[in-house]
Amino acid sequence: MISSPEVRIRELRRTYGFEEVAIVPGDVTTNPELSITNLSLGQYQFATPILASAMDAIVDPNFAGLMSKNGALGVMNIEGVYSRYENPYEAINLITTASIEEVTEALQRVYSEPLKDHLISQRIKEIKDTGSVCAISITPQNAKRLSPVAVEAGADIIVVQSTVTTARHISNSYHGLRFSELAPLVNVPVIVGNCVTFSASLELMEQGIDGILVGVGPGAACTTRDVTGVGVPQVSATMEVSAARDEFVSRGGKPVSVITDGGIRTGGDLCKAIAAGADGVMIGTPFAQTFEAPGKGFNWGMATPHPALPRGTRINVGANANVSQVLFGPSHRTDGTHNLVGALKVSMSMVGAQTIEEFHQKAELVVAPTIATEGKMFQRQGRI
Amino acid sequence: MISSPEVRIRELRRTYGFEEVAIVPGDVTTNPELSITNLSLGQYQFATPILASAMDAIVDPNFAGLMSKNGALGVMNIEGVYSRYENPYEAINLITTASIEEVTEALQRVYSEPLKDHLISQRIKEIKDTGSVCAISITPQNAKRLSPVAVEAGADIIVVQSTVTTARHISNSYHGLRFSELAPLVNVPVIVGNCVTFSASLELMEQGIDGILVGVGPGAACTTRDVTGVGVPQVSATMEVSAARDEFVSRGGKPVSVITDGGIRTGGDLCKAIAAGADGVMIGTPFAQTFEAPGKGFNWGMATPHPALPRGTRINVGANANVSQVLFGPSHRTDGTHNLVGALKVSMSMVGAQTIEEFHQKAELVVAPTIATEGKMFQRQGRI
Amino acid sequence: MISSPEVRIRELRRTYGFEEVAIVPGDVTTNPELSITNLSLGQYQFATPILASAMDAIVDPNFAGLMSKNGALGVMNIEGVYSRYENPYEAINLITTASIEEVTEALQRVYSEPLKDHLISQRIKEIKDTGSVCAISITPQNAKRLSPVAVEAGADIIVVQSTVTTARHISNSYHGLRFSELAPLVNVPVIVGNCVTFSASLELMEQGIDGILVGVGPGAACTTRDVTGVGVPQVSATMEVSAARDEFVSRGGKPVSVITDGGIRTGGDLCKAIAAGADGVMIGTPFAQTFEAPGKGFNWGMATPHPALPRGTRINVGANANVSQVLFGPSHRTDGTHNLVGALKVSMSMVGAQTIEEFHQKAELVVAPTIATEGKMFQRQGRI
Amino acid sequence: MISSPEVRIRELRRTYGFEEVAIVPGDVTTNPELSITNLSLGQYQFATPILASAMDAIVDPNFAGLMSKNGALGVMNIEGVYSRYENPYEAINLITTASIEEVTEALQRVYSEPLKDHLISQRIKEIKDTGSVCAISITPQNAKRLSPVAVEAGADIIVVQSTVTTARHISNSYHGLRFSELAPLVNVPVIVGNCVTFSASLELMEQGIDGILVGVGPGAACTTRDVTGVGVPQVSATMEVSAARDEFVSRGGKPVSVITDGGIRTGGDLCKAIAAGADGVMIGTPFAQTFEAPGKGFNWGMATPHPALPRGTRINVGANANVSQVLFGPSHRTDGTHNLVGALKVSMSMVGAQTIEEFHQKAELVVAPTIATEGKMFQRQGRI
Repeated sequence: MISSPEVRIRELRRTYGFEEVAIVPGDVTTNPELSITNLSLGQYQFATPILASAMDAIVDPNFAGLMSKNGALGVMNIEGVYSRYENPYEAINLITTASIEEVTEALQRVYSEPLKDHLISQRIKEIKDTGSVCAISITPQNAKRLSPVAVEAGADIIVVQSTVTTARHISNSYHGLRFSELAPLVNVPVIVGNCVTFSASLELMEQGIDGILVGVGPGAACTTRDVTGVGVPQVSATMEVSAARDEFVSRGGKPVSVITDGGIRTGGDLCKAIAAGADGVMIGTPFAQTFEAPGKGFNWGMATPHPALPRGTRINVGANANVSQVLFGPSHRTDGTHNLVGALKVSMSMVGAQTIEEFHQKAELVVAPTIATEGKMFQRQGRI
Repeated sequence: MISSPEVRIRELRRTYGFEEVAIVPGDVTTNPELSITNLSLGQYQFATPILASAMDAIVDPNFAGLMSKNGALGVMNIEGVYSRYENPYEAINLITTASIEEVTEALQRVYSEPLKDHLISQRIKEIKDTGSVCAISITPQNAKRLSPVAVEAGADIIVVQSTVTTARHISNSYHGLRFSELAPLVNVPVIVGNCVTFSASLELMEQGIDGILVGVGPGAACTTRDVTGVGVPQVSATMEVSAARDEFVSRGGKPVSVITDGGIRTGGDLCKAIAAGADGVMIGTPFAQTFEAPGKGFNWGMATPHPALPRGTRINVGANANVSQVLFGPSHRTDGTHNLVGALKVSMSMVGAQTIEEFHQKAELVVAPTIATEGKMFQRQGRI
Repeated sequence: MISSPEVRIRELRRTYGFEEVAIVPGDVTTNPELSITNLSLGQYQFATPILASAMDAIVDPNFAGLMSKNGALGVMNIEGVYSRYENPYEAINLITTASIEEVTEALQRVYSEPLKDHLISQRIKEIKDTGSVCAISITPQNAKRLSPVAVEAGADIIVVQSTVTTARHISNSYHGLRFSELAPLVNVPVIVGNCVTFSASLELMEQGIDGILVGVGPGAACTTRDVTGVGVPQVSATMEVSAARDEFVSRGGKPVSVITDGGIRTGGDLCKAIAAGADGVMIGTPFAQTFEAPGKGFNWGMATPHPALPRGTRINVGANANVSQVLFGPSHRTDGTHNLVGALKVSMSMVGAQTIEEFHQKAELVVAPTIATEGKMFQRQGRI
Repeated sequence: MISSPEVRIRELRRTYGFEEVAIVPGDVTTNPELSITNLSLGQYQFATPILASAMDAIVDPNFAGLMSKNGALGVMNIEGVYSRYENPYEAINLITTASIEEVTEALQRVYSEPLKDHLISQRIKEIKDTGSVCAISITPQNAKRLSPVAVEAGADIIVVQSTVTTARHISNSYHGLRFSELAPLVNVPVIVGNCVTFSASLELMEQGIDGILVGVGPGAACTTRDVTGVGVPQVSATMEVSAARDEFVSRGGKPVSVITDGGIRTGGDLCKAIAAGADGVMIGTPFAQTFEAPGKGFNWGMATPHPALPRGTRINVGANANVSQVLFGPSHRTDGTHNLVGALKVSMSMVGAQTIEEFHQKAELVVAPTIATEGKMFQRQGRI
């Protein structure tokens, strides 16, 4: 055997996604009723640590109100159809009824309609009218101009979100956004994303943000990794960003909530994200599958309509439950897609954790490929 | 390449399931006829180290008698249909005839009928009438109240079983069960489960139990891992709990039998569980596939009927053999699902082990992904 | 995170099969015409390092003659149908025409017919009449009685083969076979198998054998691993046994040929076996797929007819080439199943090896999962 | 457990293909418009670092011209149909219309027609007439004789390519090609391949070549690995050869461009190749899928027509875009097969790299199995 020049070759780190890990039960167990699942975002408290993704097929003003009634938070995208069309549901209808061959072009056409500031204000007021905390999402490019518009209209939380967001962005066409300037400007909690590494997230935290979204490339409606090769599986990404949060807080930084965003389909996925260090999760597909979602059983990513490089697809997810069933059951399904909060409470109880912080400390994750789950074999055989 | 803060990131242990490992043959071989496969549970001895799972579709009093005739042990669940209905087979019929859409609700309805103490006593007597050692299972919540009822009625072995059981359980609604108090109270062997780690199982052993069930999340009718993310593949779990048993005995503790419970479908799986350190196994699906099982070709988990968070499914497993064929053959199948004891004896002979204790010492397990087994390719192509 | 008692847990070694490895090209290349592929078995030399498996569906006297004409060697099983029936092709017909449901019973019935010494002698003479070197296989149980019969009839090479064979076998029913006694008794080269570990193969070599068969559990018609859990993937097994051969020879032992037996389907598999250290290979399925094979497109393992624990299956492999095409082409297929010798010569040339010994020294194997081979994706899509 | 002689067993290195890795986003991001993607080959500069493979189904003189208009480079094979037939499209037609059963024989027949020097000159002039830089490929056997013919006719770049090429080739039938003699002889840039290891590529660089092709066994139309077992996945191969380039340059050697050739299907694959160290890529299938490709939706490897050992297949890839869409979009697909340059620019921007050299330095690759990409699940279910 020829000895190879391994010393010269870059070592590759192993990263893990939800399907590859499992949570080890603890030495002490508790009753699920004792599990407390609070999430803080700045001064706001939520009993349910779950955000609905800022996707047009999921969060409209009505859906944001429903999330609030359930102790959770829906984030509305103010650069989507709701801010482009007086009647956004007509636009959505064009997308959901397009054939598979036409859908990318239909998306590109629908999203070429300009944004309208008066619609942004109107939608925010519609959310506030439901009595909900109002969280809206913007891209970094538009954050400086639109954030004051949104706050003026009543937005309580600003989510600045793009595929990859860093504290230092280099651009010729616009002055890179400084989060350290944005936060005091808007004077409401700011959540930033998406991010997957220790160092990039630590730099963002140092800008004074209140929350950080974790996830590049994992969502069901996202093909960023196919198109650009960029992406980090969610368990590893959450572990990195959570480690940065712990480091930041240990240095005296203010609390920052880590929100795992993308790729969560079941209660098991949610529990693993939180076991990996997240304070909460942002979920798309399971909410797109509710009867109340405006996408009527379809979903699509916000990078999908990119005119030159679409990264995402319209997925036919089907509607099969209402929002409160997804969050709290009762469930008549056994695949883990309903009663997400109940699943989290049971998972916490199995490791003896009564709070999410305890869950972070006590839950051990192990590498446990799904192939080992024998029940899947019967599922694959269609015998369930 | 940016150096990453790996030192801050939790390391993930690799765990293994049955499909990923294989047993290495030994330097000495023996004749299979010389293999002795005894299992002890407290004062009871069984020639066949196989327990039938405490599932309603598998063990009724008649089935317990059949297991006994074959030198093995069937465990009856005294919180299932047999203790809820005068005619339990009507209830089972409701479950097995429900459509796929209705089955979870049908299960939830059937199991909402209250337990009846007189039926518990009656079923135990029915088992004793077959001449069998009578083993019954209870949940930890009901163990203190129902164990004396069961022992009074004649139960010889008490199995206290829930998804995850620890020596220290925290609850507001009931006083956590102390096994150290239960064991002397009932004065019969106590088996406890389920458990998957070294430390949790060692703590349970220190309570004076006689056997421990290994397995969280692996069974074919169980979706605990999908729903809650919690589970450890069986080979690793068995290795951990067996290591705890060896440690406990080396400190002077009394013998505790380690029983791998869940996910065992073939002789190969059974042999790997015992090679990994188990003294015996508890099996569900292969017995649900017998003509004598009351489930008539169906099976379902005992967490399936949970009203808010069902974790499990009804599986159509089909019936294709009788109990003695599953245990001793003759087999007309070549997939390893029949003649489990014959398979164990041959496996022991290939590593030169004449007793299970020798098998523990001599069998080396290696990581050997199933993809390497070429025969599977033809199976997948439907050419067998 | 709870620190786990890993120090107490047995470490599991990783093993590799054909699909998981690849050969790295060398720093020097040669022309394939320069590749020499000789194999020695005792005093016999073969230009083609390929043996046909001792399976009834493959090697009858006629097939042995064909192999010889191609510079290779067919091994006939003298405990199969050819030694049980005057007209063995009637028996084979019963097997190949049985339905899937009946085939295991048909096999068990066909092989319950007793062996007949006069037929053993007759078949050996039929092989000798073709002008071929005559190699026959026997099980260890019958080796002492039948080897002299076979040698008397003219057998040139004795292959003693069972699923797992060791130098030390413990039995009550018969005196364990000592190969150190057998070799001088028969005075012809003795090949023994099967074996997969360094230590067991080294012990066998010390008995004075001339060749060793590597492989437990890998063959397409073998389900030993499903049934008993026992098996080691072929690349790792070949590396271990080859290391034992090198050790044995370095201590002054006589040359022993290492033959990888089972699981080889393509030229790529064959090349990897030899790159891993084998001197030759024994192949089943590709020869069962020839027009000249007596199985007429079917194949089955010799452990298949076991009355109580059948381990193997009848596979419909289909016939698609003649023996010389499988060995030397020309090939009109591109999947690597034809022209095995040509493939080996090209593979040797790519690592700059002109002899098999040089190939052992120069070929580096790396772990390279098949998923990385993009061409497979099109194959799976049926686009090739 | 028996301790095994691991010290004696060769250690196997893990290698990686495109599907198993992902790129980690950086701490700084840039705007994609700032990304510069130049490639140098000797004195020639290309804005687009993409070469079209020297396959008959892809590059004819017209296609070479189209690549040039897009800032890229098409390489024409001068040992294929274009140099054998006055009307090569008739020959191509024979291949594309053959049935699956006949196609390997049809390929073997078409490629048995002799090469004609006057056609070589004519095709080169046809390429020059388009205004394109003219790159042609030859096998090592014919390089010494045909390179002067090609340069005389106007070829600007010579690509010497075979499955595995080394600086030291041993042959009886022809004097091994010395690249150190060829380079000054032809006095145009020389690109050599294919190669996958540090040491073999370093030796080639020391011969004075200008570019090196990376890749043995990965292409969609290539079955080298199935047939001969030889191959190294592209990410690892690119890392090795790039490390050799860096070593060579650090010792004062002249710049050598590393071109990853084979297995690239999507923008994600391309980005990973360049992140692993490549300066450019050579692509087959995506160009075979253009309307302008002469293969009309089919593709086949140049080792496919080998008379005795065909290694490759004709693949029905389908045509679905034109060349400029594949390179620059706009894309109406979201699977990453169109707008490859746009994908590279976005990928570079996500790691904050404005040049390919910066991308090499800043991009971290991690092991991230595709199973973790949840979007694939829906794709597999046909719901996209």
